[in-house]
Amino acid sequence: MTRAVVLGAGMVGSTIAADLAAEPGWQVTVADARGAALARLSGVQTVRADLGDADRVRALAGEFDIALGALPSRLGLQTLGAVIDAGTSYVDISFMNDDPLPLSARAAARGVTAVVDCGVAPGLSNMLCGQAVTRLRPCTRLDIYVGGLPKQRAWPFEYKAGFAPWDVIEEYVRPARYVVGGKLVVREALSEPELIELPRAGTVEAFNTDGLRSLIHTLSVPDMREKTLRYPGHIELMRVFRETGLFSLEPIRVGDQTVRPRDVTAALLFPKWTYADGEADLTVMRVEARGALAGAPTLLRWDLYDEYDPASNARSMSRTTAFPATAVARMIARGEFPLAPGVYAPETPAQSPGFVERVLADLAARGVHVTAASEAA
Amino acid sequence: MTRAVVLGAGMVGSTIAADLAAEPGWQVTVADARGAALARLSGVQTVRADLGDADRVRALAGEFDIALGALPSRLGLQTLGAVIDAGTSYVDISFMNDDPLPLSARAAARGVTAVVDCGVAPGLSNMLCGQAVTRLRPCTRLDIYVGGLPKQRAWPFEYKAGFAPWDVIEEYVRPARYVVGGKLVVREALSEPELIELPRAGTVEAFNTDGLRSLIHTLSVPDMREKTLRYPGHIELMRVFRETGLFSLEPIRVGDQTVRPRDVTAALLFPKWTYADGEADLTVMRVEARGALAGAPTLLRWDLYDEYDPASNARSMSRTTAFPATAVARMIARGEFPLAPGVYAPETPAQSPGFVERVLADLAARGVHVTAASEAA
Repeated sequence: MTRAVVLGAGMVGSTIAADLAAEPGWQVTVADARGAALARLSGVQTVRADLGDADRVRALAGEFDIALGALPSRLGLQTLGAVIDAGTSYVDISFMNDDPLPLSARAAARGVTAVVDCGVAPGLSNMLCGQAVTRLRPCTRLDIYVGGLPKQRAWPFEYKAGFAPWDVIEEYVRPARYVVGGKLVVREALSEPELIELPRAGTVEAFNTDGLRSLIHTLSVPDMREKTLRYPGHIELMRVFRETGLFSLEPIRVGDQTVRPRDVTAALLFPKWTYADGEADLTVMRVEARGALAGAPTLLRWDLYDEYDPASNARSMSRTTAFPATAVARMIARGEFPLAPGVYAPETPAQSPGFVERVLADLAARGVHVTAASEAA
Repeated sequence: MTRAVVLGAGMVGSTIAADLAAEPGWQVTVADARGAALARLSGVQTVRADLGDADRVRALAGEFDIALGALPSRLGLQTLGAVIDAGTSYVDISFMNDDPLPLSARAAARGVTAVVDCGVAPGLSNMLCGQAVTRLRPCTRLDIYVGGLPKQRAWPFEYKAGFAPWDVIEEYVRPARYVVGGKLVVREALSEPELIELPRAGTVEAFNTDGLRSLIHTLSVPDMREKTLRYPGHIELMRVFRETGLFSLEPIRVGDQTVRPRDVTAALLFPKWTYADGEADLTVMRVEARGALAGAPTLLRWDLYDEYDPASNARSMSRTTAFPATAVARMIARGEFPLAPGVYAPETPAQSPGFVERVLADLAARGVHVTAASEAA
């Protein structure tokens, strides 16, 4: 019997819980402060707990064999520390802003295996990059394109937010860090838009965002970029909003008050960017790796296209984020994780033989299909 | 000696004052509450006065032969009433929201001639429409296209406001009233965008705004429309801003405060929409009249293109607004105004022989040229 606790009963947390609860031999508990979110769950046990309290998280995690984190990013680092201190293995999709890898020694000392950034991108994208560097000798370039989109496009934004809309705006203003010619370079967010054609999704627009995260430090590939995907035109509007100052956090005077423009923009935009219940989304991701395969210049390409699942009422963004995490959690629980205890970004275990294949098989079993291609480049 | 007072020392008021002061036999006084605005003037007398005080306006206007109004639109109606009560003739470009024509009997009783809406559009546009209905029998359709634009286009708005920016936003939200098939119809502002080619200005985009004003009531032409002109793309951005709620006057909660989104948008946009000192603007206007000329289907077309004048440092919007007003003021002062005392919109005296020709000659003498064309339709 594997006893798992899922921290957070949001969209991804509940999809993680449902997936693990369907696994023979697993007993799943979901913890959240929000009773209403817990009440919507079935087939799992629930615990009402303030997960912003690290002591509470440590005590809770200590009762379980493995924990899965699906909390807001601002809680990511403290939760990782608390779960490590509890001596419980951990798979996390909080996408914390802080660097989690310095906690690796502490995890190793406690015999804890923790994998962070373990969603779709970051997550599956990292794993594919990790595999690429083992197949291409050398791997000279990695490109990641990823986006979550509404299936039905509606003027003017043709966009809804599959995760916290505030984080979307943050993504639209934070400078993007890339590796070009072996050097770290910084590009303006939303810059260098390009139209690309993807299977089923059609023409989408890719633009610079700060998404490489751990890959910048863990892989020594001289060229690495990540771009976010939207329907064409969205990004020009976001550039206009940013230029106008609507995303600014600098307070301005309005009459006898002082307000941050982004707060006002968020109050207006977020209701329009929120998926209706049952509204279909889709996830598109392309990872390209260039380099030499047995001496021949080669391009490896992976394409993912996934849609909302009406049967489980799970949005594609929840599915594609949850299933890489549950795949890794199953490996850890079965003692099949390939590395010694420590904190890892997904690209590191993905360099072990068979790791990516097992994750992709688990995704495929859940209807999330990744096609792979290889061509002379 | 004609003694004239100009109410308002803003951009248009100061251009009106300079134009009249250059006229032999005219002595010009400019009144404004803002000492700094008055201090910038030369060749005229100045009076510091609170023109929001109708009693003060009445007393002041009573000392002059003719008054010219260049005040904010909210002061338009009360100022018209005060000048009439002073027994002083009046030409106004305040573009008041209220209907001024009910004051006509009061003006007639005081022997006062007042012409309102006497700028470029409304103003010159009305005069050309007035002339069209005397030339075409019948005149079946009138179309007015007009816009003030920066000469240099800058991403993203390619626009600066030649008059109060708040009034520009009002123009972008207020439903447009048209006459179609003899009936008053209402169209959404910013709707029905179309690209049109104009001499010198190139391709511009025309869209519905509420600009017909008095023409709806004074002319019995079955089809009348007015559209505003911007560089292509601007209006789509404004539609997005409006759709997002950024032009809304409905207060929203932001944290522990309540703000009107339009106030925030205005605070961010207006600095970007303000002309720099010496920055060149341009004015484009096309008026088209369709009907029968001696029984033959005919299209009459007038085109105006004017630019910032570096010699006088007067913006085109100030020039094209001021000169129709000064042309009419000169006619009134010389006793050459064709109608009995009363309050008039410009299309009414424009139906008298020679009126439009004299206004156009005065404009041409000041470098504002209107080309006229006639073709079979």
